[in-house]
Amino acid sequence: MEIEYHGGEPEPGTVYLVGSGPGDPGLLTVKAKRLLERADVVLHDKLPGPEILGDLPDERCIDVGKRAHGDRTPQSEINERLVELADEGKSVVRLKGGDSFVFGRGGEEAEYLAEHGVPFEVVPAVTSAVAAPAVAGIPVTHRDHASSVSFVTGHEDPTKEDSAVDWDALATAGGTIVVLMGVTRLPQYVTALQEGGMDPETPAALVERGTWQEQRVATGTLETIVDARDEVGIEPPAVTVIGDVAASRESVVEFLENEREPGRAESETDAVPADVPDS
Amino acid sequence: MEIEYHGGEPEPGTVYLVGSGPGDPGLLTVKAKRLLERADVVLHDKLPGPEILGDLPDERCIDVGKRAHGDRTPQSEINERLVELADEGKSVVRLKGGDSFVFGRGGEEAEYLAEHGVPFEVVPAVTSAVAAPAVAGIPVTHRDHASSVSFVTGHEDPTKEDSAVDWDALATAGGTIVVLMGVTRLPQYVTALQEGGMDPETPAALVERGTWQEQRVATGTLETIVDARDEVGIEPPAVTVIGDVAASRESVVEFLENEREPGRAESETDAVPADVPDS
Repeated sequence: MEIEYHGGEPEPGTVYLVGSGPGDPGLLTVKAKRLLERADVVLHDKLPGPEILGDLPDERCIDVGKRAHGDRTPQSEINERLVELADEGKSVVRLKGGDSFVFGRGGEEAEYLAEHGVPFEVVPAVTSAVAAPAVAGIPVTHRDHASSVSFVTGHEDPTKEDSAVDWDALATAGGTIVVLMGVTRLPQYVTALQEGGMDPETPAALVERGTWQEQRVATGTLETIVDARDEVGIEPPAVTVIGDVAASRESVVEFLENEREPGRAESETDAVPADVPDS
Repeated sequence: MEIEYHGGEPEPGTVYLVGSGPGDPGLLTVKAKRLLERADVVLHDKLPGPEILGDLPDERCIDVGKRAHGDRTPQSEINERLVELADEGKSVVRLKGGDSFVFGRGGEEAEYLAEHGVPFEVVPAVTSAVAAPAVAGIPVTHRDHASSVSFVTGHEDPTKEDSAVDWDALATAGGTIVVLMGVTRLPQYVTALQEGGMDPETPAALVERGTWQEQRVATGTLETIVDARDEVGIEPPAVTVIGDVAASRESVVEFLENEREPGRAESETDAVPADVPDS
């Protein structure tokens, strides 16, 4: 049998704001896959990952994540390009890693398209904020441990006076905290959370490239996670999970098929990667 | 061209913890679709919705959302059934609406399976907490309005002394709040948030059956959203979005293709449904 689905035919002059999911091509939605296969143009950056981008033909792709001198394409230029292409009658996919509306600037793009009279469709995706922890054995909510979960961006400096993220409030809210794009600033926000009253023994984990073949995990507590990051050598892109749920991994990892796939790196706090001298 | 994907072949004796996404079959992941089509048994409740469940053959399905006298199947019984079926050598999909790890008890099921030595795989999904607002024109984060988003369950009574959700902390955190399963208790938590210091003018929206053909939306403010709910006649399942982003819908809805599909109900605060007398 087959589950029927009749949508996903790209219309000329329409922009599709599509999320790729966390990177495993199997976690594309049926609709996203169909649109990517059939749209006239795909505007993307690198975050959807090599397994998805590698299958898209170059002649239909525009990489807006890089520019000649290593800068990123400004958002204003991407917005203008979307309108231009739609006005030319093309069907356009704007592809983001994860979900376009979870720190993906999909909201800004939608507003710009509406202002310029361009019809658009939103194609929600699997967000890395939930999926990366999940495949590593960490549920972001749990009946016994977490009745709420907050996603925050780690791009901002928590020591800034006018930081848009209220780390004190997050520290007292008592639910799980998931920080996206926060590998570099990890020491700053784990300090901010402890200053906000969060127990230094609170479990924490980092999941790099969740769902990719190269997935890597580091675990510890609010107090030890910076060292764990450095020992495993976690690099962006990665998500940080802070809360009691982060300890769940330990009890399930042995039976977790997601971690047994060929090529999947086995990296734990106590494991030292081969390319780092044992000091 | 086609985006290649080689996984998703169900293994005997393995349990797949699969989310269906918000209900549109096009928002199933490629992997979830393949597993649903090929697994020996699918344990599900009603939340994946009629469009997805309607295509699954009855002889492979076990509905664990209902019992003879209208009760729900207890979680302990579902856990035991999963282990039994896997021990019989079957490939088993445990299908939840949305994502299994966002208030879906996936964490409990994973722990039980690991305790009983049953291999399992986690298949993350599109969560309704992000997708339902998104298709209604509301991004849960926005560079200008929201640097964080918190998902909470509306099942709990906020007036309970030992409520697991800290509504005061959420009220001061300043990001978007998305409440799942909170149609009935809406009056209680909008009061709790205002008592916690949140501006009564804060925009709010309810999205019922987001991405379904029957999607309906009510919009207002923290102060008016209960009346808006009643005017539109919003019923569960629905998500509530509270925060400045909820006002975004107004500026984009005219060009939002997701709202123009045939059969999609047009429901706004100021629209009175046909079956309700204009009082």
